Amino acid sequence: MKVDICFTPNDFDDEKYSKYSAVVIDVLRATTSIATACANGCKEIRPVRTVAEANKIKANDPDILLAGEREGLLIPGFNLGNSPFEYTREQVAGKTIVMTTTNGTLALTKASVAQKVYAMAFINAAAITSILYQNQEDVVVLCAGSEGRFSLEDTLCAGLLADRLSNIAKLSDTALAAQAMYHDFAAELLARVAESSHASYLSSIGFEKDVMLCLQRDILTVIPVFDNGVITAQN
Amino acid sequence: MKVDICFTPNDFDDEKYSKYSAVVIDVLRATTSIATACANGCKEIRPVRTVAEANKIKANDPDILLAGEREGLLIPGFNLGNSPFEYTREQVAGKTIVMTTTNGTLALTKASVAQKVYAMAFINAAAITSILYQNQEDVVVLCAGSEGRFSLEDTLCAGLLADRLSNIAKLSDTALAAQAMYHDFAAELLARVAESSHASYLSSIGFEKDVMLCLQRDILTVIPVFDNGVITAQN
Repeated sequence: MKVDICFTPNDFDDEKYSKYSAVVIDVLRATTSIATACANGCKEIRPVRTVAEANKIKANDPDILLAGEREGLLIPGFNLGNSPFEYTREQVAGKTIVMTTTNGTLALTKASVAQKVYAMAFINAAAITSILYQNQEDVVVLCAGSEGRFSLEDTLCAGLLADRLSNIAKLSDTALAAQAMYHDFAAELLARVAESSHASYLSSIGFEKDVMLCLQRDILTVIPVFDNGVITAQN
Repeated sequence: MKVDICFTPNDFDDEKYSKYSAVVIDVLRATTSIATACANGCKEIRPVRTVAEANKIKANDPDILLAGEREGLLIPGFNLGNSPFEYTREQVAGKTIVMTTTNGTLALTKASVAQKVYAMAFINAAAITSILYQNQEDVVVLCAGSEGRFSLEDTLCAGLLADRLSNIAKLSDTALAAQAMYHDFAAELLARVAESSHASYLSSIGFEKDVMLCLQRDILTVIPVFDNGVITAQN
C-alpha cells in the first residue's frame, strides 16, 4: 500500500492515480462543510464549477439548497455560504445541496478519475483513516490548495492521514514531508495554523470561529464519498 | 523582510520575484558540488542546459573542465561528474568549469531574474544565512526539485534557512511548512533523508558517501553568487 500527496490540483496525474483511492481535502472550509452536511443527514451534495450552473439546477428543482462561496463570502441568492456552522440538521436534513466553492469543487472534479473518492477534513480524519485501513488500497491525497497554490492547513491534514497510515503504507516524499510538518504542528495546531494566509484572511472577514471548528480533529465519524458527480455519506 | 519558498521551478513567478534575492538549492548534488568547487578555488562555473552546448564551449577553449550528470552519472567525455568529492583543489583551482545537470541548471536559469542569486546546500547554509541576514532583503528560495517534482532534501534545506531567518523575517506558508519539516527531521537528518526517493537512487548507483557528505551542515563558509551566467565565490 502506497500513500502519495499532491500539494495542489496541478500535481494530480490522471493516469497514475486512476488506480488509486483519492482523498480530497479542503479544510478551510469546503470539505469540513461537506462532512458536516453529511453528518447532519443531507440527501446528497452535488459540486458544480460555476454559479450559473448552480442557478440553472435550482431553476429546474426549487427544493434544492444552493451553497458555496466566492472569496469566502455567501453568493447572492444562495441559501448557504461555506461555513460549517450553517450546515445544521434543521437546514440540510433530507435535502439535495448544490455546492460551488473556489478550490474544493475543482479538486473533487480532478480526483474523480480515481477508483473511489472521499472528502476529508480534520473533523472526520479518523473515519477516513479507518476506511482506508480496511481497504488497504493505494491512496493519493489531493490538497485543494488556494487558487492553485500550496495550502498549509490542507497539507497538515494530509500529513495527519499519512502519519496514521505510515505503519501499513509506504509514504512518498511528499507524504513524508507532510507527516513531518504535522508532527511539528500537532501540539499547537490551532495557534500555528492561525498564522497562515487563508486562516488569517477568514478571521479578517469574521470567520475566526470557523477556523477554530475546522481545526478540531475526529469529531465526526462520517465518510463522504464522491461518485458519479454526487457526494453521499457512506453507510 | 519576507522569506518565500518555491518547492519546484514551476512555482517560480518571474514578475513577483524580480525584486527578491534568490537562493537556489539542489542538495543532491549540484549546489553541494558548486559550493565545494568555489571553496576549492575554481575561477568560475558556467551552468549550461545541454551537453551539446557544453561541448561547443570546450571546443573553443580546451582548458575548461566539463562537468555534470545525466541520471546521476558522468557524461561521456566529461572531466567531472556531479559528485562533490570530484571537485578537489587539485582538479578545480583556477579553472573554469562548464556544468550541466538535470535540475540545478534549470533552477539557476529560472532564478536569474532576481536581484541577486546565491547557490546553497546544507554544507554552506550558515554562510548563505549570514549574507541574507546582512542584506535584509526579501528572499525567495527555489528548490531545484527532481524533474519538476517535489524534492524532500531541497525543501528541508530551504526549511533550515527559513528557520534561521524566522526571527527577522515574515515566513510565507510554504516557508512555515518547510521550517516545520526541518524541525521534525533535524535530529536525524541523514537517516531519514536516506529514505527519500533521490537519496535511495543515488545510494543504489554507488553514491552513498555523496549523500552523507551532502547532508553535512555548515562545513564550508563559501558564498557562490550567480551573475551574468557565471557563478563565482563572493569575497
